[in-house]
Amino acid sequence: MSKSVLYMSMSLDGFIAGPNDGPGNGLGDGGTRLHEWIFSGAPTEHGGVPARPHGVNGEIMDEGMATGAVLVGRRTFEHSGGWGGDHHDGVPIFVLSRNPPDAQAEDWPLVTYVTDIGDAVARAKAAAGERDVLVHGALTARLAIDAGALDELRIHLVPVLLGEGKRLFEGQGIELEPVEVLDGSGVTHLRYRVAS
Amino acid sequence: MSKSVLYMSMSLDGFIAGPNDGPGNGLGDGGTRLHEWIFSGAPTEHGGVPARPHGVNGEIMDEGMATGAVLVGRRTFEHSGGWGGDHHDGVPIFVLSRNPPDAQAEDWPLVTYVTDIGDAVARAKAAAGERDVLVHGALTARLAIDAGALDELRIHLVPVLLGEGKRLFEGQGIELEPVEVLDGSGVTHLRYRVAS
Repeated sequence: MSKSVLYMSMSLDGFIAGPNDGPGNGLGDGGTRLHEWIFSGAPTEHGGVPARPHGVNGEIMDEGMATGAVLVGRRTFEHSGGWGGDHHDGVPIFVLSRNPPDAQAEDWPLVTYVTDIGDAVARAKAAAGERDVLVHGALTARLAIDAGALDELRIHLVPVLLGEGKRLFEGQGIELEPVEVLDGSGVTHLRYRVAS
Repeated sequence: MSKSVLYMSMSLDGFIAGPNDGPGNGLGDGGTRLHEWIFSGAPTEHGGVPARPHGVNGEIMDEGMATGAVLVGRRTFEHSGGWGGDHHDGVPIFVLSRNPPDAQAEDWPLVTYVTDIGDAVARAKAAAGERDVLVHGALTARLAIDAGALDELRIHLVPVLLGEGKRLFEGQGIELEPVEVLDGSGVTHLRYRVAS
């Protein structure tokens, strides 16, 4: 059965972006540190598409890319340039927004705007079939947790204290069940089930 | 060589105590959840001294109890009743306080008050000899980090979101090096070196 799984890189002090995040600076000042593990396999000489990281980090990337739908907040979506309309492998992208635009700037057939978090999760799961739904973004995560619509959390815990920026969690009190701990190169991948 | 090592249990959202922590409520409202892993080996019928937890959690307890000195903030010290004057095995306890008391309420020969964090770490290391110094308390941790006097962090990451309370980290921006990840029962033990 499809599960909704939050995928987020987070510093040990709980930040998922540095200060001043915005369009073109999606991870905020200094926040690219949080994604270094993703690009650990990247060639530095030629630029271009980063190579898949080796070992555990590569397996975690594969896991995320094996999801059957993406659910993301509009802010994160727009800060990421909408991933050019395709996050991975042409799977549907559901964008949570209280005020969906009448028309998109781009013609992106994979993208659907949804206003209600419960509806968004249900539609994303239906679209994903047997596969999981990749949930992304701090506000979307909080809304999903508050609505009881988040099944699991996959936190990529990065060994740094940012000291300031945007936090992943704010005010949620929930119990979690550890599912898996994987020790990647320069990052610890934690997986938790939201206790029911 | 002796290292200063912070030992703290922390929720996934970064709290080391619930709200309203104080004397007699050292972990704050709901904060005892963070120490459940320590008491996982405790007999529930008879009360009394809790048994050593099994497996990895027991090994981590042993590691902390093998330290040769304790450095703690006055607030944490007093909220813990001063551990009756002996944290473990009669090792010296250094209590960081800007305004040390003229006299202690109790006659505790192991306890020394120190006003400066650098001085406190140096004296604790000297007292510990070849063994490490167990550092405890959020404010003391921050002061030690800011002074460049903290060598390592041993975080017991507890699978819960508290949502509110007292945070471990506030405003420190430092790079860490992962040293070890140990998957205990109901808790993940992370060890980091502070990058120089």
